[in-house]
Amino acid sequence: MAPFLESQQMKVNGETEKCRVTVVGSGNWGSVAAKLIASNTLKLSSFHDEVRMWVFEEVLPSGEKLSEAINKNNENVKYLPGIKLGTNVVADPDLEHAVQDANMLVFVTPHQFMEGICRRLVGMIREDAQAISLIKGMEVKMEGPCMISSLITEQLGINCCVLMGANIANEIAVEKFSEATVGYREIRDIAEKWVQLFSTPYFMVSAVQDVEGVELCGTLKNVVAIAAGIVDGLEMGNNTKAAIMRIGLREMKAFSKLLFSSVKDSTFFESCGVADLITTCLGGRNRKCAEAFARNGGKRSFDELEAEMLQGQKLQGVSTAKEVYEVLSHRGWLELFPLFTIVHEISIGRRPPSAIVEFSELKPKFSILESAAQFY
Amino acid sequence: MAPFLESQQMKVNGETEKCRVTVVGSGNWGSVAAKLIASNTLKLSSFHDEVRMWVFEEVLPSGEKLSEAINKNNENVKYLPGIKLGTNVVADPDLEHAVQDANMLVFVTPHQFMEGICRRLVGMIREDAQAISLIKGMEVKMEGPCMISSLITEQLGINCCVLMGANIANEIAVEKFSEATVGYREIRDIAEKWVQLFSTPYFMVSAVQDVEGVELCGTLKNVVAIAAGIVDGLEMGNNTKAAIMRIGLREMKAFSKLLFSSVKDSTFFESCGVADLITTCLGGRNRKCAEAFARNGGKRSFDELEAEMLQGQKLQGVSTAKEVYEVLSHRGWLELFPLFTIVHEISIGRRPPSAIVEFSELKPKFSILESAAQFY
Repeated sequence: MAPFLESQQMKVNGETEKCRVTVVGSGNWGSVAAKLIASNTLKLSSFHDEVRMWVFEEVLPSGEKLSEAINKNNENVKYLPGIKLGTNVVADPDLEHAVQDANMLVFVTPHQFMEGICRRLVGMIREDAQAISLIKGMEVKMEGPCMISSLITEQLGINCCVLMGANIANEIAVEKFSEATVGYREIRDIAEKWVQLFSTPYFMVSAVQDVEGVELCGTLKNVVAIAAGIVDGLEMGNNTKAAIMRIGLREMKAFSKLLFSSVKDSTFFESCGVADLITTCLGGRNRKCAEAFARNGGKRSFDELEAEMLQGQKLQGVSTAKEVYEVLSHRGWLELFPLFTIVHEISIGRRPPSAIVEFSELKPKFSILESAAQFY
Repeated sequence: MAPFLESQQMKVNGETEKCRVTVVGSGNWGSVAAKLIASNTLKLSSFHDEVRMWVFEEVLPSGEKLSEAINKNNENVKYLPGIKLGTNVVADPDLEHAVQDANMLVFVTPHQFMEGICRRLVGMIREDAQAISLIKGMEVKMEGPCMISSLITEQLGINCCVLMGANIANEIAVEKFSEATVGYREIRDIAEKWVQLFSTPYFMVSAVQDVEGVELCGTLKNVVAIAAGIVDGLEMGNNTKAAIMRIGLREMKAFSKLLFSSVKDSTFFESCGVADLITTCLGGRNRKCAEAFARNGGKRSFDELEAEMLQGQKLQGVSTAKEVYEVLSHRGWLELFPLFTIVHEISIGRRPPSAIVEFSELKPKFSILESAAQFY
């Protein structure tokens, strides 16, 4: 792993080498990320203008290949229609080719593809490459969460930051004001480079030294969104919804800190924390399906509602709630996380939706692990 | 000031004296507070059953006096119709008489009445009395905020806690789940007494040692609600709204900490902080009027909209924004609080509503006060 600092950039023929960026992924959010980045590489002299974007090739109904359509129209006609990406974005359907010259790799694919992508990239990337993951929704396994940033570092032997926040791709695409948080591990200069690459007047990015905290926010918020949707479905009002969101934020913080002692409270005040939670609990598919679930009195399963309402998209909150529940149960922490626990129990039909506000369930029982009180 | 601890309660004829509670105020929130308290004094042996409630006397259209109507119907027919308060709530139109036997005083009146009430109560209350203020919206004067809790302590010579939170009175009245935060100065046992007095299965109360932080949250959130309403009026979407709410929470925290070094970050994770902010920015009259203001492109003044939309209620966010602006301007802090600053400038027509998201304005300029960075 060879970290680069601005002052330590590799020199070729006596000249400082410019950074080359490749975006690995070209869905809705990946395309918006490419647009943000491409607007900056044109302006910043320390970056090559060209931004390469790896496209998982598809054939469009017209018979045209997606990558060719993107390059011809300068627009991702399938996943971000109507938005020009910048003429310096080059779609490339060949993964290995797309990454080979880049020293800044932006990963933004569905999380279930990352293991396969990493396997393909071993030995194919520059040794001095830096990575950032925009992927929300890593898995929480019994032995702890399987962080995408760790996967990238372990598989590819490169440093990996994360970028999370209240980021509805389509709103950023039309340049509505928004924020995001970069989480970095050690080297502030690298985080600053990513901040520079993503920041625009309508997209404000800050960096915090807390990869795990930032990355966990992006996943755990979906569990809280299920709870918020249930409150909406039961028409309990804004007061109750705000209370449930607050308790959810507290459990996100406590869970993250119990798993990683390096996680900081202040991270939860950043865009990746409270702001992303608000966005996700106001709109978002997890909230929406949970609202429908509660309106039906829990009689129609989440699987059924997901199939009906999401046109093939997956409902991460329910599966994350299940994974979190397994960790809590395995470690004997269920009573410390009454909201996370209830969300899972409601989602599998063991409790009715109205249990979401049962008082006795919502006061963490520190007696089972006294040291846990400090995490609240 | 003679604080009582549970273990140190005054003994009369060898018996521990029970606590007597009086609620000073009988508006919408005051009536709900009396209902909550009355349900607990019946259950808890350390309290007298009776809860006295001072009523600012009015004559109802029927010709009946409000206090008599409350006592006859066991219901505040004017300010909380349809809700039974508990038969142990006794309305009393005589302020001095209402407080004379109480050793726990709950203040819940419009804030502009508190100076007059305190003047009337000097020398009329028990020396060992404890107070709590539920009053949101103290004034922020040039020399700093004029805290209601300080006013009570200074004028009456008694200790004063505060209770704030995401508390829409009508939702709590119908027993929808909600939370609140008690802020206390020194003695944890007194805070616990208040927690006991207010807590019900649908109203969860926690205590934090931070009177100023809790009290400032209750006022400053209204400035953020104006900003959130402007974002709604401009139809900028949930992403932008969440970002503005987050920046607002950050400025609430930084402003409170700059004014009172005792203020704690963790207070802003409590119900009085993030949850009350969410409730106020989702519903609430400040948000609503600001939305209308932005929809009209700032062409109709807040005064005009307030008169039209609020039926005599006052819009606290705009006046608080003005007061905060004066403090910021006086201390040379304007550039540290770009959101608070812009809200005021928009509200007086100096800037257009769209300025709410102008990037260059939203990055605090720490260079003017380097030590301020630690408060963010």
